[in-house]
Amino acid sequence: MKKIAVLGSTGSIGQSSLRVIELNPEKYKAVALAAGRNIDLLLQQIEKFQPEVVAILEEDLAERLRARLNHTGPEVYSGEDGFVRLATMDLVDTVISAMTGAAGLVPTYAAIEAGKDIALANKETMVMAGPLVMDQAKKQGVSIMPIDSEHSAVLQSLQGHPREDLSRIILTASGGPFKEWTLEEMRGATPEQALKHPNWNMGPKISIDSATLMNKGLELIEAKWLFDLNTDQINIVIHPQSIVHSMVEYRDGSIIAQMGIPDMIMPISYALSFPRHEETSLTRLELDEIGTLSFEKPDLERFECLSLAFRAVEVGDSMPAVMNGANEIAVESFLNKRIGFLQISGLIKKTMEAHQTYSVGRIEKVIEADKWAREKARELLESGDY
Amino acid sequence: MKKIAVLGSTGSIGQSSLRVIELNPEKYKAVALAAGRNIDLLLQQIEKFQPEVVAILEEDLAERLRARLNHTGPEVYSGEDGFVRLATMDLVDTVISAMTGAAGLVPTYAAIEAGKDIALANKETMVMAGPLVMDQAKKQGVSIMPIDSEHSAVLQSLQGHPREDLSRIILTASGGPFKEWTLEEMRGATPEQALKHPNWNMGPKISIDSATLMNKGLELIEAKWLFDLNTDQINIVIHPQSIVHSMVEYRDGSIIAQMGIPDMIMPISYALSFPRHEETSLTRLELDEIGTLSFEKPDLERFECLSLAFRAVEVGDSMPAVMNGANEIAVESFLNKRIGFLQISGLIKKTMEAHQTYSVGRIEKVIEADKWAREKARELLESGDY
Repeated sequence: MKKIAVLGSTGSIGQSSLRVIELNPEKYKAVALAAGRNIDLLLQQIEKFQPEVVAILEEDLAERLRARLNHTGPEVYSGEDGFVRLATMDLVDTVISAMTGAAGLVPTYAAIEAGKDIALANKETMVMAGPLVMDQAKKQGVSIMPIDSEHSAVLQSLQGHPREDLSRIILTASGGPFKEWTLEEMRGATPEQALKHPNWNMGPKISIDSATLMNKGLELIEAKWLFDLNTDQINIVIHPQSIVHSMVEYRDGSIIAQMGIPDMIMPISYALSFPRHEETSLTRLELDEIGTLSFEKPDLERFECLSLAFRAVEVGDSMPAVMNGANEIAVESFLNKRIGFLQISGLIKKTMEAHQTYSVGRIEKVIEADKWAREKARELLESGDY
Repeated sequence: MKKIAVLGSTGSIGQSSLRVIELNPEKYKAVALAAGRNIDLLLQQIEKFQPEVVAILEEDLAERLRARLNHTGPEVYSGEDGFVRLATMDLVDTVISAMTGAAGLVPTYAAIEAGKDIALANKETMVMAGPLVMDQAKKQGVSIMPIDSEHSAVLQSLQGHPREDLSRIILTASGGPFKEWTLEEMRGATPEQALKHPNWNMGPKISIDSATLMNKGLELIEAKWLFDLNTDQINIVIHPQSIVHSMVEYRDGSIIAQMGIPDMIMPISYALSFPRHEETSLTRLELDEIGTLSFEKPDLERFECLSLAFRAVEVGDSMPAVMNGANEIAVESFLNKRIGFLQISGLIKKTMEAHQTYSVGRIEKVIEADKWAREKARELLESGDY
């Protein structure tokens, strides 16, 4: 029985994770749930999964939750400290890290330090602190299993093939809702339009990241650290149907690909059952019903975020964390209709240009870089300089 | 150093095999070459690869070869016995079985009995005598590595994933040159038209088998035995670009696929280097340059051979050997313009219908079934009853 803590249980990935746990009650148990703000859904989850501990970010929400639980049921922690305490509890084997954004870093890193296996959906953890995370994971002997259709596909395509024969990986990207839009049309894109992802049903942050292709940028950085690759071993190809989730090429020219219908249940299940494939009751992929899979080069001019990510990972040190922090502010500002769609990359670029890179040997330095980036991005926003 | 015997060295697969050997002179050595009739090419190969033994099918050709070698260079064997002797020599580690048709069975089976590892391009060996071959291979502890883009793809897609989690395999078929032809147009198809395969450059027998889809029928039977599958675990999908070479689906719905440019160098190299991927200098597959991959259901009405193969393997025992024997006669008759294209399946069907199935516990019984089928098919040809 794998005892699981879900960080971000009320989010899109968190909910899918609980569905996977539900499908395999003899294998998995959700012993701890941590959520941001949605106490109504958390209450439903508590009733259904009977966790021993829950956590919620804000203290006043935690108080309301305790009151509604009538002081029976699970213990209720709160705040970042509460998340860390929950993720490092003795009774937890595996932490599903499914919080959104940079907030996932601290509890995830703490869980690794505590020797917990990680199923990682929070790509910001790897983007901001990849080398630190991988070093710590190695030191603690814990496994980090990606919950991302792309990284899960790479992981699956690496199984059984000698690592030294790998030549490159090819990450697929749907291209997002603006794949066919002109630069001029993109300039006027609204949050509502950007939130309409063609294939995946996801949270707002990641949906905007998909529209700007920053999501692929974050993924290429994550892939670099997770699979120990050089940047030039990572290719991006646009694949609008999101059926081929990603690929690995070996030096004989053979490409191993992983495919499936676009549903996060699959990578979540694989991350928990690795290297087994457990029953998921997902609809089978029938390629002869789908008919056509298409592939094209990404347009780096219209999707500048992708270039920014390649640049950030090549500069390294504090730069990826800065790029990520600036991106979070930019996405938030776009969702609040404070900036236009194309200004997302503009704001990130300006923030990166203003940054003096420094090395990040400790997690505190990463958090400092993130904080700096957010402040700088807000300052640029105020001054209108983006 | 892997010491290799190539059966069928002057054929299409044989020549590609020698190219793979040439690419890796520190790993592979061609110590024995066996050819059908092409002594000019065999002489060139002898000069280049300096084998210790060669064999040629007909005794008078062997005499001519000995004369032209001026009694220096390799020993020259002849006939089926010569092939068997060559394939079972002590100095051979691995036999590449690349002869065309049923003629490959006896030397390949003898090589297995002699404990040689097999790289198998001759699918008829598995079609005719799959259970016997697999039993004998198990007994001798030898490996049978497929040299077929489809079976190599399945093998590659099985690596690192638990066998018990497999749900089905999906073999891809190009659909051949008549994919878009009407039944009426196919009736008038000439050998020249049938020989024009859209993606693969192959010998005449396999090209016709690709045009009738019997090639896929043979492959599904081969796959059943090679990978120990039930017939209902084998799906066929038409994929005109021949880029996805085949796929394996696991029970979580995840599909692992192997892709590459259509070149036999890749499966040959993998069969010899398994589980490694050695450098092949093949052109890289760039999906964003290819653009589109398409998939459709096979039309069992226009391509009756596929149904015949499913039927043959379900009946089992001597029936697959009979189907294969009848197919060889039918293809030969079509190439000689004695029968029309659609009559290929007609002749096979009639032969199968006339057959009283019996169990084939020994290789002699398989050969008997093959012989019976050829005689029956010729008899039906004579009488015009097909």
